[in-house]
Amino acid sequence: MKIVVSGLGIIGASVCASLRAAGYTVYGKNRGRDALEYALEHGYIDGEATTYEDADVVFLALPPDITMRELDTAIFQDGAIVADICGIKGLIEDVVYSKPRNYRYVGTHPMAGKETSGVRSASATLFRGANLILTRHEKTDEKAFQTVKDLAVQMGFGYLLECSAAVHDKKIAITSQLAHIVANAYAKSDEAQDCGGFTGGSFQDMTRIAGVDEAMWTQLYFCNRENLLFELEGLVERLGKYRDALAQNDEGKMKDLLREGRILHETSKKKREKISD
Amino acid sequence: MKIVVSGLGIIGASVCASLRAAGYTVYGKNRGRDALEYALEHGYIDGEATTYEDADVVFLALPPDITMRELDTAIFQDGAIVADICGIKGLIEDVVYSKPRNYRYVGTHPMAGKETSGVRSASATLFRGANLILTRHEKTDEKAFQTVKDLAVQMGFGYLLECSAAVHDKKIAITSQLAHIVANAYAKSDEAQDCGGFTGGSFQDMTRIAGVDEAMWTQLYFCNRENLLFELEGLVERLGKYRDALAQNDEGKMKDLLREGRILHETSKKKREKISD
Repeated sequence: MKIVVSGLGIIGASVCASLRAAGYTVYGKNRGRDALEYALEHGYIDGEATTYEDADVVFLALPPDITMRELDTAIFQDGAIVADICGIKGLIEDVVYSKPRNYRYVGTHPMAGKETSGVRSASATLFRGANLILTRHEKTDEKAFQTVKDLAVQMGFGYLLECSAAVHDKKIAITSQLAHIVANAYAKSDEAQDCGGFTGGSFQDMTRIAGVDEAMWTQLYFCNRENLLFELEGLVERLGKYRDALAQNDEGKMKDLLREGRILHETSKKKREKISD
Repeated sequence: MKIVVSGLGIIGASVCASLRAAGYTVYGKNRGRDALEYALEHGYIDGEATTYEDADVVFLALPPDITMRELDTAIFQDGAIVADICGIKGLIEDVVYSKPRNYRYVGTHPMAGKETSGVRSASATLFRGANLILTRHEKTDEKAFQTVKDLAVQMGFGYLLECSAAVHDKKIAITSQLAHIVANAYAKSDEAQDCGGFTGGSFQDMTRIAGVDEAMWTQLYFCNRENLLFELEGLVERLGKYRDALAQNDEGKMKDLLREGRILHETSKKKREKISD
């Protein structure tokens, strides 16, 4: 089985490194030489690929726009399995299924990453124990889907979740996309610019992901605009209630708001823990 | 030196445990028997205290209202050092300095904690490497201040920061208080109620502290109402800009907003790292 991974950023290079560590033959395709050479030197890839044409399995670890371009116009082998790792899935499926394809598409989204990016942040253990979402469509080829699941297990993922692209995009708006906006907005407070010594875990957690790659996240946001806007509007509305409680000097209302959040958090956390057991 | 710690929650019992591990004699004062017995069994305290009258140093590890009551009406030895650990400092100073006192007050705020509370979450190592803020006032007794700093080093704190109560209360509104409101409000999204498998580190960080003790935090918030309201209004206003960018389909604006936040975050993070070096 010849595997080609296109895009040697943190995710793509970690796909290479973890699959190669599991004994697979993996070729890397990348525009820049630097990442390719780094991946070769560190044993993440067996060699360079310049085409997808002889690959049995292709992973596209690229930004959404380039992923869609590749899925629409690149040349793949008949029956090749082509998986992407994009953080949004609906628009990608729209491109793939807009006409008949000679390849078999499987959508994935690894719930793994770091605050840093690029090949130097990659590792063979990045996915260990992490969640992987796989999206299903009525046109999904079952054998291809199963092959990608098997590879995901080899990469070290701890939990595989299957859902539709629509469910994925709705959930991801709150579990990932909005979190990056909030962290980014939080870090802008004037008082936060000079608060060394005043910060504990709460502030660090709240702002850890504030340093987003603005080009990539803007793309992701506008590929999931309606869902994200819905969640952002919801959060602004909810925060407004705490603001009103403070402005109106209403301690009872504040306590009720916090209690409601605590109970929802405790309940949903238990559900999540059950799943990852 | 006889030390009495009043309130054997996570912070109070950790003050006991860390000071006792450093060789001090420490007595615990607590309304409930359960925490006292747990602290005795685990060697966090030498014994029970029922009064502050023979203590050279008293730590009040109590909610703001009870802290203020004790500072105003409890009986302390002449010249005793009395330190509190409350998350707000201005109102506490107002009470202490509202009339002459026979004790010497020092305000502290440990930047340490966990998502859990109570004596069972305490440990001798909770403060290891953490920040401690100490507040100074024109009436602060220098010797008492120095003694509390020495004890803080013995407790394991890694960085001691001195400032006025006013500066403390302003900074803490963004570095701690608002973070708890945001986490609490974030966790309330309908989609977050059932998102097992969809969550990675971003969501976990964003909601880790959502399960606040609503009674204590409501108190803290209303003891720092103006500062917190200012920060909350600021955040809601900033989030509104991202919402507008989405609603107006303005990718350039979104990218600018994210870039601005990333740069501020990177710059302020460097400043903070310099301090904790």
